[in-house]
Amino acid sequence: MTDLIQMGKRALEAKYLLQKLTEEEKNKALELAADRLIAEQERILQENAKDITAGEKAGMHPGLLDRLRLTSQRIHSMAEGLRQIAALPDPVGEVLESFERPNGLKIQKRRVPLGVIGIIYESRPNVTADAFGLCFKTGNAVILKGGSDAICSNLEITRVLRDALLEAGVTPDGIQIIGDTDRAVTQAFMKLNAYVDVLIPRGGAGLIRTVVENSTIPVIETGTGNCHIYVDESADLDMATEIILNAKTQRIGVCNACESLVIHEKVKDAFLPVLAKALREKNVEMRGDEQVCSVLSDCIPATEEDYGREYLDYIVSMKTVGSVEEAIAHINRYNTKHSDAIITENPAHAETFLNEVDAACVYVNASTRFTDGFEFGFGAEIGISTQKLHARGPMGLKELTSYKYTVEGKGQVRK
Amino acid sequence: MTDLIQMGKRALEAKYLLQKLTEEEKNKALELAADRLIAEQERILQENAKDITAGEKAGMHPGLLDRLRLTSQRIHSMAEGLRQIAALPDPVGEVLESFERPNGLKIQKRRVPLGVIGIIYESRPNVTADAFGLCFKTGNAVILKGGSDAICSNLEITRVLRDALLEAGVTPDGIQIIGDTDRAVTQAFMKLNAYVDVLIPRGGAGLIRTVVENSTIPVIETGTGNCHIYVDESADLDMATEIILNAKTQRIGVCNACESLVIHEKVKDAFLPVLAKALREKNVEMRGDEQVCSVLSDCIPATEEDYGREYLDYIVSMKTVGSVEEAIAHINRYNTKHSDAIITENPAHAETFLNEVDAACVYVNASTRFTDGFEFGFGAEIGISTQKLHARGPMGLKELTSYKYTVEGKGQVRK
Repeated sequence: MTDLIQMGKRALEAKYLLQKLTEEEKNKALELAADRLIAEQERILQENAKDITAGEKAGMHPGLLDRLRLTSQRIHSMAEGLRQIAALPDPVGEVLESFERPNGLKIQKRRVPLGVIGIIYESRPNVTADAFGLCFKTGNAVILKGGSDAICSNLEITRVLRDALLEAGVTPDGIQIIGDTDRAVTQAFMKLNAYVDVLIPRGGAGLIRTVVENSTIPVIETGTGNCHIYVDESADLDMATEIILNAKTQRIGVCNACESLVIHEKVKDAFLPVLAKALREKNVEMRGDEQVCSVLSDCIPATEEDYGREYLDYIVSMKTVGSVEEAIAHINRYNTKHSDAIITENPAHAETFLNEVDAACVYVNASTRFTDGFEFGFGAEIGISTQKLHARGPMGLKELTSYKYTVEGKGQVRK
Repeated sequence: MTDLIQMGKRALEAKYLLQKLTEEEKNKALELAADRLIAEQERILQENAKDITAGEKAGMHPGLLDRLRLTSQRIHSMAEGLRQIAALPDPVGEVLESFERPNGLKIQKRRVPLGVIGIIYESRPNVTADAFGLCFKTGNAVILKGGSDAICSNLEITRVLRDALLEAGVTPDGIQIIGDTDRAVTQAFMKLNAYVDVLIPRGGAGLIRTVVENSTIPVIETGTGNCHIYVDESADLDMATEIILNAKTQRIGVCNACESLVIHEKVKDAFLPVLAKALREKNVEMRGDEQVCSVLSDCIPATEEDYGREYLDYIVSMKTVGSVEEAIAHINRYNTKHSDAIITENPAHAETFLNEVDAACVYVNASTRFTDGFEFGFGAEIGISTQKLHARGPMGLKELTSYKYTVEGKGQVRK
């Protein structure tokens, strides 16, 4: 069985070495890692083929097999991802605040790495390189625990990345991976708070719940998204249709896709038939309350449970309300604090919605699909946080850092 | 048994009401709460007397009894604390960032309350008013769980504060207290993540460990402090003596007091006898390594365990090292990531120490006793965070907030 204590100790040593690296040293290592991934793609593909064969034997769903499969092109994308991270500015060392106290103490708040980051993730092997790149650029050591389906691929990618670090003159323990697929090891990993500063789960609702319930390490919850779009009485209805269609159907399996619609009852007769026509063309199943069903004969009656569902499918729930306040109350009750939007031409309603909806990202007249580190201009993304501690919404490089206070005196003592 | 679900639901309703309050409305309620505490001090003192009597019967230590005891003066201090919080600027609503994307989306990062804060604390009843004031000013609902020793005092203070909120036209559920002293209730409270956004334990190492190990709610760890002072070879030795004496003895029972000394071996002969004389005058017991003991005949040999101890007593551990690097490695191994200091006249050593010691607050030529929200000029303090997520070091009002992104568009959809 994996010796997690030894891994923890190595990560701890690595973190003190990584925090001393200059931006240039880190970028050079990232470029080298990108080169190595391409140079060694044959070996990576061979290992990936073992995972694919095992997946096929186990009767894995074709969609999941596709996520698992690497190609030369996908390995080039992984390498390109590392180069893009190298090109981003290094946030570490930034002086966030600087002030002097009346007693002459000079205090600075300086941005520092988090230290050791643990990441538990599911199938896609490209996350291995991606997560390493983001953690390494911000001076963090990372311990990865990937899904058992991708174990051969993940181990090989990690081997390549460790060799690249060694070649760059950096400790290879900047990245370590747990090669053991035993659940007991994952459980023990979640209790490794003597060595790991932060644990980030990336995956479905089940994985995230398991981590939140079992980890003694501080967790950044990257969440599920039951994203709402509320169509206000004053909405531009053409815009509403276009935004809903985009948010619901442009990509269905993602956390920022729309799952739930809230419709002001005054626009239901004018709006629902037009919307339904567009949704039917995309084969979206509609589940609505009584008022919605009274307008749309093919609408399935929604249950209480529907309002809280993240379908990740061609299904949408629909609820009518009598006011923006009622819409906000409904959304705050059922949302997952991810992304919710109002479509309105009424600035007062827009501002009320922005202020009172409790979500990481709140939109006026735009698709919820924009909740994304790249779309926000962060240049990278480790996930979307749906908790309120530390980071909320898309997390880029800055969200992988902490800070420390430095205090410089001339012999001051406390009276 | 306390119905925690009902308390959670009431807190959830309160959080949506509190986040709508203006700064003026919050300040008015805080002033009213201060007035009420003074107007109703007799009733508070009566309830406090019950706790004192029970404590005496149970043979409580005189020091703890003193912490538990309220007086008219102490109630006036609690009221004054609320008025000071009212006078501080409200951080909620601050626009932290504002930017426009190439597609025209206008994004703002706005400071918002955390939502519902849970606080688990030990004996001192003044924390009840203090924690309420900080949470309320930042628009958060709070659920308190105080120590069983202070239960009558805490219930009565909470009653007064809730009456004040009601009088101010604010929901009294801005503050709720768990009146049940059953441990099972505390355990269940730590799992209330459907309603509570953040849990902050305030108390000793045992309490904090229990919360970290059992909570499924995100925790801000307010930690224990094994604070180090390193005396470099180039230190001003008079300054070193003065700072150590202050950090060790000015107040021994606090988390920012010095517990461990690290001494460069080149200064041990000149420095240790002078330091020891000063420490002996304050009755500080010294526990040192072989080199220290060879200079100081009355020094007790230190064990491995001593280097990791937070004594909170008139005891200090002492270790010699050969370089600043060795000092840093020793400190990073044994510190609790709270506050550590270097005494040096060498700017390069100072900078290395500031960069490489992993602690919330790192000092050059000053006492570790300054790690404190008031000393940092925050005007208030809810605790000292020793974790790296969200907040590190002294936490004031800003650290009781989160943020949300608002995104305003004109119909943008994702390509």
